Amino acid sequence: MTATPFDLDDELLARAAWSALAEPGDANAGALVAALGPSRALHWLRAADGDAETVRRAIDALVERFPLPRTGARALSAAVARWGPRLGDLDPRRELQVLRSLGGVLVTPGTPWWPDGLDDLGASTPPCLWVRGDPVLPGASARSVALVGARASTAYGNHVAGDLAAGLAAREVTVVSGGAYGIDAAAHRGALRADGTTIVLLAGGVDRAYPAGNAELLSSVVERGGSVLSEVPPGGAPSRWRFLQRNRLIAALSRGTVVVEAAWRSGALSTANRASELMRPVGAVPGPVTSMASAGCHRLLRDGAAVCVTDADEVVELIGEIGRDLAPDRRVDDRPADGLDPDVRRVHDALPIRLGAPLHQLAREAGLSEAEVRGALGTLELVGIAVRHGPGWRKATPQARRHDVTDG
Amino acid sequence: MTATPFDLDDELLARAAWSALAEPGDANAGALVAALGPSRALHWLRAADGDAETVRRAIDALVERFPLPRTGARALSAAVARWGPRLGDLDPRRELQVLRSLGGVLVTPGTPWWPDGLDDLGASTPPCLWVRGDPVLPGASARSVALVGARASTAYGNHVAGDLAAGLAAREVTVVSGGAYGIDAAAHRGALRADGTTIVLLAGGVDRAYPAGNAELLSSVVERGGSVLSEVPPGGAPSRWRFLQRNRLIAALSRGTVVVEAAWRSGALSTANRASELMRPVGAVPGPVTSMASAGCHRLLRDGAAVCVTDADEVVELIGEIGRDLAPDRRVDDRPADGLDPDVRRVHDALPIRLGAPLHQLAREAGLSEAEVRGALGTLELVGIAVRHGPGWRKATPQARRHDVTDG
Repeated sequence: MTATPFDLDDELLARAAWSALAEPGDANAGALVAALGPSRALHWLRAADGDAETVRRAIDALVERFPLPRTGARALSAAVARWGPRLGDLDPRRELQVLRSLGGVLVTPGTPWWPDGLDDLGASTPPCLWVRGDPVLPGASARSVALVGARASTAYGNHVAGDLAAGLAAREVTVVSGGAYGIDAAAHRGALRADGTTIVLLAGGVDRAYPAGNAELLSSVVERGGSVLSEVPPGGAPSRWRFLQRNRLIAALSRGTVVVEAAWRSGALSTANRASELMRPVGAVPGPVTSMASAGCHRLLRDGAAVCVTDADEVVELIGEIGRDLAPDRRVDDRPADGLDPDVRRVHDALPIRLGAPLHQLAREAGLSEAEVRGALGTLELVGIAVRHGPGWRKATPQARRHDVTDG
Repeated sequence: MTATPFDLDDELLARAAWSALAEPGDANAGALVAALGPSRALHWLRAADGDAETVRRAIDALVERFPLPRTGARALSAAVARWGPRLGDLDPRRELQVLRSLGGVLVTPGTPWWPDGLDDLGASTPPCLWVRGDPVLPGASARSVALVGARASTAYGNHVAGDLAAGLAAREVTVVSGGAYGIDAAAHRGALRADGTTIVLLAGGVDRAYPAGNAELLSSVVERGGSVLSEVPPGGAPSRWRFLQRNRLIAALSRGTVVVEAAWRSGALSTANRASELMRPVGAVPGPVTSMASAGCHRLLRDGAAVCVTDADEVVELIGEIGRDLAPDRRVDDRPADGLDPDVRRVHDALPIRLGAPLHQLAREAGLSEAEVRGALGTLELVGIAVRHGPGWRKATPQARRHDVTDG
């Protein structure tokens, strides 16, 4: 191991170092840092890094004192071999310098800004977050929803993602997504359009816009009170592995995850799975069955892995507390005979529109007794939708609706 | 009561008479006919019809001998008063004559053509079915699906209904629906298009096409091996009550019910509810959330009252036996690194495309040990997607895909 010219005992630096050493989601790193603290874990690693015998001895000494959860001596030995190649030119001060030049902040566990939700990730909780924009927002978002979906989205998906995001923003719900093309971008933009806050979780470093075409969008998010963050230090390239691991952060930072459009196999489904594993609710937006871009959403619905959501109210209900945040009942135009007893409705249906029909004819028509028809007519007359006409009865247009063209 | 010039002891005539006397779904009629048989029930009714005292005495005599299920003396008394108005000009020979002139047949319980599924309706089992076209089909349809939905359907809904029906017909599944405009018509037409069989359940008599605009469609169904049927005698007008009751027959005649498009409040949802009550599976076809014509389907999905179905295979799986009729897995184009161990994939992702990278650089990039990278490269070389290049390794296009334009 080459010299590490930075202060290993500075916890912030040590956490930054761990985020550079270990790939996202490395449970061995998480367990080690949780057991020793980031600085002592670094000291230990520096001592352990060497030939097989050195590693073995360091691990033996360690496991004697700390029962490492979710890992074992064997796995730790493999992990040391993985971290080793990166120990050489490790210097987190460099990455922190880049972050600060962008106005960013490193947010670490145990500080007030740390998002509690991330701790649900257990040993795969990231050692720190590299944050541009508002560093408080991710931790303050008690009400946040991940809107995720296909990069190859359709106009329909973009429209729905934007509308949902705007609706959520209007209800003071923070919109979390991955900053990708397609649904992600539409979600971030929808939140901004409604003057809401939105969080972008990148798979690579926050110094590089990925995809480059969304650079302006990421800047807007930062400028307009949102956050752009990553568990990977500046300079880190997004890789397939990091995208998958990033999805666990999206799920963990949100009260619930909604998939807007997703192909049969899509990264968005992995975010949904992560949310389920974290016991967070998952929603899926349906779409035309003729659209392959909705096949993943329908798959989630078919498997019972997601609740069908169609508007912002239903999304708020998804993440809301029981008894609060219930989606309002749909308003539908009441028809005059609605809410009446079925027998009374049967009499109303049997009433002619123009010429009155006598009681016995109405009884035969409706399949009711004359007494029942007489009673029903009383109700219908009271409601104002039946009137006497000659020796019988006919339908009447209720007073309030007399000029209503669509009444029937 | 006026004279009834027909033979009350002819069971066929007696059942036809009951279908004219009682409105669809009348559980009192069902219980009485089940207890006494249709003829004795008619004799009893003729004797009971009169003043309050006559009715009371007839009922007392009856309940002494028969414990009438799901009904009581009070309810039966009300029912007698309902049937009374229709006893006057009752003559089922007239309606049977009309049916026969149309080439139709009266199908009754206990005969081989009777659809077993209807018996699940208990006391509201219809006394008989007035059938045009193939009288055997409804009873023979062990594999049948109801495709129901909005009259005010969209082009999308009509397209999907037609496609589902054609797909079901191709799988020898009979398509059951209500003969209405919109989804119903599209379903019947789709089945005919694929040379399949389809059953139309009308709310009014089979002698009158309702709606009139579908007269030609109903004729086609009859001509092409399907059936048009009703529990209401010829001449019977469709009423709102009869539409609702007709829906229970659609549900009972089918192994499962699929709602293709339905507004937030729609008659099709009542068919779905009836199917659920009969423990038959219910499916719903999703659509754009921007389409009010799909709101009812999404409601069923949200409430967990229906399974999301998107094609004929999934519908067949819905009604199929467990372990048989599973919808085939979606085919997706495999990508070269699919199915590999995640660590191996990480190495593949870290490989450059043009110039080879040395082992130690790949290890740092992938966050793995050099030993792991070495092992992974062995696998990748074997699969044919990594090659040595100079002092290092790079990605390779697998042999079989060399000419594949979309490969990446």
